[in-house]
Amino acid sequence: MKNIVIIGGGTGTSTLLSGLREFPTNNSVIVSTADDGGSTGKLRKELGVMPPGDLRQCLIGLSHADPVLKNLFVYRFNKGELAGHTIGNIMLAALEKMTDVTTAIATLAKMLQVEGSIVPVTLFPTNLSAILENGKRIAGEHAIDEPRHNGASPISSLSLRPSQPANPRALALIRQADAIVFGPGDLYTSTIPNLLVKGVSEALKKSKAVKILITNIMTKHGQTNGFKASDFVVAMQKYVPIDVLIVNNKKPTRSQAALYKKEKSVFVEPDIPTLKKFGLKVIALPLLSSNTFAKSDGDDLKRSYVRHNAKKLSKILYKLVA
Amino acid sequence: MKNIVIIGGGTGTSTLLSGLREFPTNNSVIVSTADDGGSTGKLRKELGVMPPGDLRQCLIGLSHADPVLKNLFVYRFNKGELAGHTIGNIMLAALEKMTDVTTAIATLAKMLQVEGSIVPVTLFPTNLSAILENGKRIAGEHAIDEPRHNGASPISSLSLRPSQPANPRALALIRQADAIVFGPGDLYTSTIPNLLVKGVSEALKKSKAVKILITNIMTKHGQTNGFKASDFVVAMQKYVPIDVLIVNNKKPTRSQAALYKKEKSVFVEPDIPTLKKFGLKVIALPLLSSNTFAKSDGDDLKRSYVRHNAKKLSKILYKLVA
Repeated sequence: MKNIVIIGGGTGTSTLLSGLREFPTNNSVIVSTADDGGSTGKLRKELGVMPPGDLRQCLIGLSHADPVLKNLFVYRFNKGELAGHTIGNIMLAALEKMTDVTTAIATLAKMLQVEGSIVPVTLFPTNLSAILENGKRIAGEHAIDEPRHNGASPISSLSLRPSQPANPRALALIRQADAIVFGPGDLYTSTIPNLLVKGVSEALKKSKAVKILITNIMTKHGQTNGFKASDFVVAMQKYVPIDVLIVNNKKPTRSQAALYKKEKSVFVEPDIPTLKKFGLKVIALPLLSSNTFAKSDGDDLKRSYVRHNAKKLSKILYKLVA
Repeated sequence: MKNIVIIGGGTGTSTLLSGLREFPTNNSVIVSTADDGGSTGKLRKELGVMPPGDLRQCLIGLSHADPVLKNLFVYRFNKGELAGHTIGNIMLAALEKMTDVTTAIATLAKMLQVEGSIVPVTLFPTNLSAILENGKRIAGEHAIDEPRHNGASPISSLSLRPSQPANPRALALIRQADAIVFGPGDLYTSTIPNLLVKGVSEALKKSKAVKILITNIMTKHGQTNGFKASDFVVAMQKYVPIDVLIVNNKKPTRSQAALYKKEKSVFVEPDIPTLKKFGLKVIALPLLSSNTFAKSDGDDLKRSYVRHNAKKLSKILYKLVA
């Protein structure tokens, strides 16, 4: 079986994993440890644990457990002192306090009948720091993700504080990969934070795996304002050479676009003529799921209303490595 | 197989169940729903769920799951906004919000490989109210359990507010029982609250099962000050005729007794001559576990330092029904 390694964390990654888990591939995911928003932010601050939110989403993405257990794991309290926390985040935090993050993930992976590996990019929590083109410094993943500043100035550089060494298991996954997939997910707060970890970018450059970028469906205010598909490629190529680009060419419906209006997000245009100049393979297809997604009660983070069709996306990846 | 029904909730009940689960008997437990202290009190107040603490302890008592899962289930947070809560309480609360208390128990029973039934005495949360001999009224299980008043005046009557009908499954268990066991556990806050639920006392009186009372090892300040074994019998016989009394006759060590000194608790004397006058079968044996128990970090409730030897106690019960 071919080894597919997804690099990310978050809702986009989890969606993709839920499609990939049905294919006969070895699926692994390398997860950022820079998240500090919502329930995750509180748990890491109060208990000193690794950010659990993205790990929880990846566990669910690769889980073959029955729906009762999965629904319990993603249940989010909306009242009282537990408000905002999910059962999965709470269980991960408890298990990490009892053992360590690797054992915590393994215990829940067994309980949730996960097939595949879920590996934090480092074994240490990290903090993201962005410098904008206007010179302003933004500290923390959540502050970049949901900017309080006007969000109009592009991100010029991103770093981790403190700088942390890569998890050896993450580097091993990269070495053994047949395909490495970046995205879909927030470019500067889910995907690139993984590439800032010491040793990751070097390992990626050495790797013979096909490097696949999946661009997002919508721009994200404060991160990718005005980005076309080619801008995602340019941002990524600073860290890793991309071989294949998968881009959605189906616009969201008018009502979906309306939901994004107040978030100052628009459709990511598949600017094919520009992309062709980059010398990479471009796969442009209608990949938008027909569903509109609502976030759960008690969730205080922004979530995507539109998502990729996980099955279609996974089939493309499968064909690329088969 | 013979049907043994334990009536209680709490640490004493859980200890007994952990012994009984190794015997070839059908073990069931009927659990009080009047608890309102600690994590349980917060969850029922904030989320409107049934008190989870005693259900959690009974699930663990009857669980055949591997230690990793059991340890996770009883893990208690000691920091941050989750401080005081156990994973088991949190999972029970989430599952009840998603479904109902019966389904929540069944889901966790399956996950924890529970053999036996765990049945709340009513399907509604209840509140305990005590009138002391000095005329004072104490509202709430926790206020009776850990009295802020001087605790010297005995409890003269106990009631549930509001009065609630019995869970039909609890009544069915009583009808089918070969033996019904009361205690060990806090007499007025774990055992008797079950007997105040509409229909329970009547069902017990009709039942042909042998009724067994296990007296506590130590008195509890504010509840059973100065109680000898015979006083437990007298208190219970107000609600249900007792056939067999099991009483520990081994005193705790000096260091164990010292731990209880500041809690104003002393050894429950097995006053055999008085007991013999009651016309019930008395089994007086050394039943004290050789361990001294500490409570977990973050736990803000009083817990027993000494407990019954669950194996010995279970063997006696098994022989009584076999």
